[in-house]
Parts: sequence; C-alpha cells; structure tokens
Amino acid sequence: MKFRAEIDVMPLKALLDPQGKAVTGSMKNLGLPEIQNVRIGKHITLEIEADSKDSAKTKVDEACKKLLANQIMESYEFELFEN
Amino acid sequence: MKFRAEIDVMPLKALLDPQGKAVTGSMKNLGLPEIQNVRIGKHITLEIEADSKDSAKTKVDEACKKLLANQIMESYEFELFEN
Repeated sequence: MKFRAEIDVMPLKALLDPQGKAVTGSMKNLGLPEIQNVRIGKHITLEIEADSKDSAKTKVDEACKKLLANQIMESYEFELFEN
Repeated sequence: MKFRAEIDVMPLKALLDPQGKAVTGSMKNLGLPEIQNVRIGKHITLEIEADSKDSAKTKVDEACKKLLANQIMESYEFELFEN
C-alpha cells in the first residue's frame, strides 16, 4: 500500500526562534501588528510504500528521528494518509 | 478574539525541489528505500488578534502574500483555530 505522510518539524517551544522573531518584527512594518508570536519550522511531505499503516508509521518515525528532525532543537509530528 | 494560524508553504509541484531530492536520496542510504518523493517546505504558526474569523483570514492571507510565501515559486495554505 502507498501512504502519504505530512510531517511538521518545529523548533522546541523552550528555544528562541530567531527567524520567527524577525518575521514577527516585519509584520509590524507591513501594517500587520495584530500578528504575533510567529514560529517557523519545516513542512515535509513524502510517499511511502508499506504493508500496513502501522509499518508505515514506524518507518516515517524512523526517518524523522534519523534525518528529518534534530530532536535536541526540534519536535516533530506527522499524519499518514492512504494514497 | 485571538486566533492561531497554521500555515504550510510548499514549493510548487511543477518546480524541482533540490532539498527534497537530496533527502530522498539520503533515505536510501539510511535503509529506508520505501520513502520516495520527499518535498520540503515551511510550516509557520502565528497568533493573530482580530474581530472575527473572516477578518483574521484576510489578514493571514495578506501576510502570506506579502511576506511568508513567494508565489512565483511557492504555494501556501492555512487553517485558523480560535484560541
């Protein structure tokens, strides 16, 4: 079966997010001071071939841990959809 | 009212995504050849103060168009949640 994974990798809440801070500042200059607390991470989509949803889940989790997210600075979450 | 927006900014499907291509290649070396077609974009969360959900939607759309997404190379979509 083929699955599609939608993964979000975000900087940990406890850490500063300098890119997000800079964008929050720019919102003010753009005339959008109502926008606050911008945080910027990665959104990753991928396709995976697996026998079952559980097996796909294990593999995507492995990919996140080994390559996609740096768990010291980032947290991740994902959803799987059958294609 | 306070809303939280969850925004995904992705490279357009018609364009090459070199970062995604590189990660797809690395999956093979990691022992995960089942993973294909990795695409990497940005995930952005922000908080916005607005009178109504419609007004928040308009403002987040403006922020995406003016700052968060480059519409020549990227597409965006977002969801709004009441905080």
